[in-house]
Amino acid sequence: MTNPRARVGISLAEAETPSLLVDIDALDRNVARMARFAADHDVKLRPHAKTHRSPIIARRQIAAGAVGVCCQTVGEAEVMAQGGVGDILISNEIWGANKLARVAALARQAKVAICADDARNVADLDRAANDFGVRIDVLVDINVVGDVRTGVHPGEPAVRLAERVAESKWLSFAGLQAYAGKAQHVRDPDERAAAVRTAHEAVAKTRQLLGTAGLDCPWITGSGTGTYMLDGATDLYTELQAGSYVFMDLDYRRNLEADGKFYNDFEQALFVYSTVMSRPSESAAVLDAGLKSFSFDSGPPALDGVPEARWLGGGDEHLRLEVPGRPFPHALGAKVKLVPGHCDPTVNLYDCYLAVRDDRIEAIWPVAARGASS
Amino acid sequence: MTNPRARVGISLAEAETPSLLVDIDALDRNVARMARFAADHDVKLRPHAKTHRSPIIARRQIAAGAVGVCCQTVGEAEVMAQGGVGDILISNEIWGANKLARVAALARQAKVAICADDARNVADLDRAANDFGVRIDVLVDINVVGDVRTGVHPGEPAVRLAERVAESKWLSFAGLQAYAGKAQHVRDPDERAAAVRTAHEAVAKTRQLLGTAGLDCPWITGSGTGTYMLDGATDLYTELQAGSYVFMDLDYRRNLEADGKFYNDFEQALFVYSTVMSRPSESAAVLDAGLKSFSFDSGPPALDGVPEARWLGGGDEHLRLEVPGRPFPHALGAKVKLVPGHCDPTVNLYDCYLAVRDDRIEAIWPVAARGASS
Repeated sequence: MTNPRARVGISLAEAETPSLLVDIDALDRNVARMARFAADHDVKLRPHAKTHRSPIIARRQIAAGAVGVCCQTVGEAEVMAQGGVGDILISNEIWGANKLARVAALARQAKVAICADDARNVADLDRAANDFGVRIDVLVDINVVGDVRTGVHPGEPAVRLAERVAESKWLSFAGLQAYAGKAQHVRDPDERAAAVRTAHEAVAKTRQLLGTAGLDCPWITGSGTGTYMLDGATDLYTELQAGSYVFMDLDYRRNLEADGKFYNDFEQALFVYSTVMSRPSESAAVLDAGLKSFSFDSGPPALDGVPEARWLGGGDEHLRLEVPGRPFPHALGAKVKLVPGHCDPTVNLYDCYLAVRDDRIEAIWPVAARGASS
Repeated sequence: MTNPRARVGISLAEAETPSLLVDIDALDRNVARMARFAADHDVKLRPHAKTHRSPIIARRQIAAGAVGVCCQTVGEAEVMAQGGVGDILISNEIWGANKLARVAALARQAKVAICADDARNVADLDRAANDFGVRIDVLVDINVVGDVRTGVHPGEPAVRLAERVAESKWLSFAGLQAYAGKAQHVRDPDERAAAVRTAHEAVAKTRQLLGTAGLDCPWITGSGTGTYMLDGATDLYTELQAGSYVFMDLDYRRNLEADGKFYNDFEQALFVYSTVMSRPSESAAVLDAGLKSFSFDSGPPALDGVPEARWLGGGDEHLRLEVPGRPFPHALGAKVKLVPGHCDPTVNLYDCYLAVRDDRIEAIWPVAARGASS
């Protein structure tokens, strides 16, 4: 699964393109920075492994203090367990007898918890746990922002589902998942804070009603790279799920901070390496990294160090850029770094990371769970 | 590289999700239809393998009459040759000594031709061919639509580069590549025809100037699924490169025909299979196929058979849909088919196709060149 054409020890300039680069030092600084925030705020950190799909990076996060990882799919969870991660939260609903059997089987190899938002699904999970003779912690997923997404309504509906879990023979009600997905990418800091407040009120209300119903709620997990500083500063969340902070991307950098600056808590550690393969004009270039080398869901990538470069479009293997009114700064055949619009689905396009330090390929890390979406 | 959880012989309903489905019968009808068009119009067909990245599908196209395939990357070409395809055009510029060595090495295993738009690149290719003692056919890539893309200007610049190729010891000038990429997706039929006419004039002029310069031009390749009927009806193109026709996607279906109907020359043969995993409201659903299961560059996927379903957004593993004012037609846990917005980069997300006939998995075809973008 690793790139047969990359080799540890060669200089970055010798690497073929397109390839996925991770700056090891920047990654490690990001990992340390978030770990320090969690420690300072007395909250656990369980980074989302859907960002990197790599047990090597997960173990680096755990070595720095994380309690384990979140996974979004059973396949990701299996790869993480195989890669030595011992504590996994499947932060998602899982349907289907086959997949639930895989969850229960995995609970024999690692500590596995899962989310639910439906009583029938809880019954299916209970049956699977029974089949494998395992106890599984279940978090009730609550929809804290109100848009169309997973999760039961906060308050009474969450309490009813928690009671249903607590009645199950093989399942334990462990707490709540309260992920304000929409809030992560709200650009305006006041609007983002307001969205987060709404979520916090829903969590607080639900926690209180659970207490009234006699249900303990020791675990409240959620948050992300866009709101970790707001969620981590409350007494609500016991655990933060941020993922993108390890790499960063253009989309998160578009968030505005209260001081009017763009979000900059973490360094850019992820790049796509690409070659200039055609120069249609003095100011324009075609690069060899297109729709199969980037996810475009959050917009096109940016040319590193050349903020004025404008994206003109692209094909499956072409990216067309222009620097209006100026010569394009890179010659035909030159290799350049690009910053992805959205890190998670871009990573999922590659079989491996070229892990770079001082312009040399120091390691090749498989994206071991690439494509493990089922 | 195949999906360890799929199994030949099971019913489609037993397949895990998300997975990539190909309807074998629809695929074969599409393959036959394009082959018939090419035969009827006395033009060769060299389908683009970047669409499917599968030698199995390529060999089906060749068995139906195609002369070989186009590839966009060296990695794709290597996989096609390994998979038994004997005639490959790399319809792209390739930079870098390593990659050009791979091209030359491949020319020992299969008939390989390549495109160029720069004299320095031609010199590099000549050197690589010399190193491996192979003769390589080179097509001069001309930019026939004028936007920022690969290719030299038609006319004199193309003739000068063709002369440079013809002077090379190990290279043969074989003709022109004239791909009107932009024209493929022009919605209005009159505007599309006008864009194609501009391209045809550029081709005709360049061919004439080549003749005046004493250069034979036996091979003119280009076209695509959106304009094959216009390009194939001229005496200019000797070969059509269409690729998407094997699968089709939503984007090509947005093209309007002269009769006012949407483009419908080929059947939808490609789907993503997905499970309803949450039902936030009566009219809405969350499905388990998100940004890592579809390429969103040409818009979101559509729910097969439910044209009124509206896309509300999605996450890495979630797709949020609503049928406004009506109950969502599929229950929790149900498996449904989705039609991708853009077929090529969506295919590139999967390790294999589940090849389906009569709602049964009849074969599992690896996407053998998945990720082979370098």
